[in-house]
Amino acid sequence: VPDPTDPLAAGLRAAVGDAHVLADPELRAGYETDWTGRFTGTARFVVRPADTAEVAAAVRACAAHGAAVIPQGGNTGMVGGGVPRPDGARPQVVLSLTRLDALGAVDPVTAQVDAGAGATLAALQAHAAAAGLDAGLDFGARDSATLGGIVAADAGGARALRHGTARAHVAGLEAVLADGAVVSRRNGLLKDNAGYDVPALLVGSEGTLGVVTAVRWRLVPRLPARVAALVPLPSVERAVALLGVLRSRLPALEAADFFLAAGLQLLLEHQRIAAPVAAAPVYVLLECADRADPTAELAGALEAAGIEDAVVADDTASRERLWRLREGHAEAIAAAGVPHKLDVGVPAARLAEFLARVPETVAAVAPRARTILFGHLGDGNVHVNVLGAEPGDDRVDEAVLRLAADVGGTISAEHGVGIAKARWLGLVRGEAEIAAMAAVKRALDPAAVLNPGVLLP
Amino acid sequence: VPDPTDPLAAGLRAAVGDAHVLADPELRAGYETDWTGRFTGTARFVVRPADTAEVAAAVRACAAHGAAVIPQGGNTGMVGGGVPRPDGARPQVVLSLTRLDALGAVDPVTAQVDAGAGATLAALQAHAAAAGLDAGLDFGARDSATLGGIVAADAGGARALRHGTARAHVAGLEAVLADGAVVSRRNGLLKDNAGYDVPALLVGSEGTLGVVTAVRWRLVPRLPARVAALVPLPSVERAVALLGVLRSRLPALEAADFFLAAGLQLLLEHQRIAAPVAAAPVYVLLECADRADPTAELAGALEAAGIEDAVVADDTASRERLWRLREGHAEAIAAAGVPHKLDVGVPAARLAEFLARVPETVAAVAPRARTILFGHLGDGNVHVNVLGAEPGDDRVDEAVLRLAADVGGTISAEHGVGIAKARWLGLVRGEAEIAAMAAVKRALDPAAVLNPGVLLP
Repeated sequence: VPDPTDPLAAGLRAAVGDAHVLADPELRAGYETDWTGRFTGTARFVVRPADTAEVAAAVRACAAHGAAVIPQGGNTGMVGGGVPRPDGARPQVVLSLTRLDALGAVDPVTAQVDAGAGATLAALQAHAAAAGLDAGLDFGARDSATLGGIVAADAGGARALRHGTARAHVAGLEAVLADGAVVSRRNGLLKDNAGYDVPALLVGSEGTLGVVTAVRWRLVPRLPARVAALVPLPSVERAVALLGVLRSRLPALEAADFFLAAGLQLLLEHQRIAAPVAAAPVYVLLECADRADPTAELAGALEAAGIEDAVVADDTASRERLWRLREGHAEAIAAAGVPHKLDVGVPAARLAEFLARVPETVAAVAPRARTILFGHLGDGNVHVNVLGAEPGDDRVDEAVLRLAADVGGTISAEHGVGIAKARWLGLVRGEAEIAAMAAVKRALDPAAVLNPGVLLP
Repeated sequence: VPDPTDPLAAGLRAAVGDAHVLADPELRAGYETDWTGRFTGTARFVVRPADTAEVAAAVRACAAHGAAVIPQGGNTGMVGGGVPRPDGARPQVVLSLTRLDALGAVDPVTAQVDAGAGATLAALQAHAAAAGLDAGLDFGARDSATLGGIVAADAGGARALRHGTARAHVAGLEAVLADGAVVSRRNGLLKDNAGYDVPALLVGSEGTLGVVTAVRWRLVPRLPARVAALVPLPSVERAVALLGVLRSRLPALEAADFFLAAGLQLLLEHQRIAAPVAAAPVYVLLECADRADPTAELAGALEAAGIEDAVVADDTASRERLWRLREGHAEAIAAAGVPHKLDVGVPAARLAEFLARVPETVAAVAPRARTILFGHLGDGNVHVNVLGAEPGDDRVDEAVLRLAADVGGTISAEHGVGIAKARWLGLVRGEAEIAAMAAVKRALDPAAVLNPGVLLP
């Protein structure tokens, strides 16, 4: 029960109502630890505002009473950016956006929809499908991940290959700034260059510059004819070469993910199923979508690339079975321990080199660890999972991130920087650029109210 | 000849070499007035750096000696943002980027290319075509407009309907900040969310936060089979309805522009040609592009929309003839006088209302003026040209911009705010958002070295 003389508690209760200020440790617990179990901290309160005005009031209350605001969506983040800091000196307030889950009517002329920050990706997908359109974004955590978090991280997923990351879908935003002011730009115009693109700055800012409260989402045409294929390949080089062929011959290509033998083995054991494909070092999972059935087009492209043993799935159930092999990696890994999860991106030309060097790089600092590698072949986004290293041993993270930077890549592709990687931002961003970021942060949030410790070193 | 004791002159000569510091009024003249003739000012010097290092040195020299930097590309801007301010209190230095016109090799894997800020759009288009790709952006000033200016304004053009504005093509940027520091992010990764997206902030910032020196441009597949059609229509409502049909039935649709009877008449007289189409109040110019000939698809869609009298152009020469009717508007208008040119955007649902109200709105403040309206039907971007009003009479501008805001639109769609519209930014951006913009500007350019007076009120 909040101390009735605590002015922060009083301010928050006035902002969102007594029933939505959670102080009881048991009620708070689900908001204080991320789903991997790696990041955790203690929140003074968890608040659950109902709308933008309540978000603004809650932010003002925190600012007035020296508390840090930790915005949280579906708590599916991977970098500790949505849970309290373990070392927070100030009181921390988790601001859960899940009640802002309204979805507006789809505008058929612009193919856009207004969505609350707390709406899940799955809810948006269903809503779009009912209007004959598609969200254009998809990933495994679709049932929990919310649009506010997706925008704050600039999430990507498998279909970014065709449709871009979340950024490409943001036709407008509403957000609460650090002083509680509301900015809103949701006219939905494709061209609107009046002044700095504040929404573009907020996308990917991980809740450090503003709290996203609503998004105007740009949908894409629904392409109902889908086919997937799982392709076993002898090497990463062959996988990259295959992608080159498919890019030029297969306009219907929507996703091209990959995983390796070790990951598939772990998953098969976890799910207690048999391998649906011939054994190989590398597997590429393709998905095509078009207005008319793209199966023949896919078969032709695979033949042109010299592929003979692909498993093709042209109905929904078998497509979903193939995708569970890829998406199930995260769960199979979590069941095996608390992993270090590193989301990096590398140029296609150096992907094979990077993947080959990861195991030795990790072994140099954590000899008994094992690495599970999978990701998005089409955009060079690799999810490096390290099992068997001490959860607190940052040498593993640093070694992998340095390797990504060494091959001309990035330390964060689609998960964000969070608290997990802030200290290594300098591996891929120059001093001048980091100084510019810090100047922008100070300008918009001089008291560091919003998500302190996240993103910037 | 620069005064040898002038420290600004000495600093600039040291930065870019004596030969590229222009002080002679005759040499400066072409850089001091915009092409419409409406905006003009006096530059102390025009400097023409050869590369990024020289740009940085020139910016540092200006910052050190209290001069304002006016970045300039092809000087095709419409809002006075690329020429000296008429009322500049400090010395003004035009920083011409046209010598930074290098085009790198096209990367076939990512379909990206590194381009200098001074490369023209036409040069990029030719370069992309030679690699079997397409720039994905096009507009009338292609032979002069440079990529740096295009990015600084977030230019759009007719094909934004399909490919997005310049923003959608920026895979990376290099820029010089107000203190002369260089920021560069050009790894070309589709997913790279490590820190704030500083490039995204610079796009559309009109040279007020940084000087763009190079762009990594995302190309699109080349669609060689093209067909255009000019459709005479009885009303704007019918044009908007036609667009709705085409959007759902014609995936090959790349552009849908419009002009009106008065504009066509002016153009026909200026070009001394006969009308190539039946007389009508409204004309819609469509372009389709695909891998295979889209003519039958276009014809089917037009038939479904009940259109019988379209002029179809399926060869390059006749397509270009149709597009000259649309693109020639600017020149025909310029030949008739010094226009007020207002680039606004309005939602499709209110386009007819807006176009109908413009003449009366202008007449209320300039009874003898005439309005020529044309633009991009597909994205609601209207170019309002007012002839016969006093060039300095801002009431015309204000009346049109207020009308655009009244119907839920924007005061700037693709030309930018410049000095022409800065005072009216508040019509479409809230106080909190403008305050945030001003805070970002102060944070990155505290001494207001870069393009003062542009964009912010």
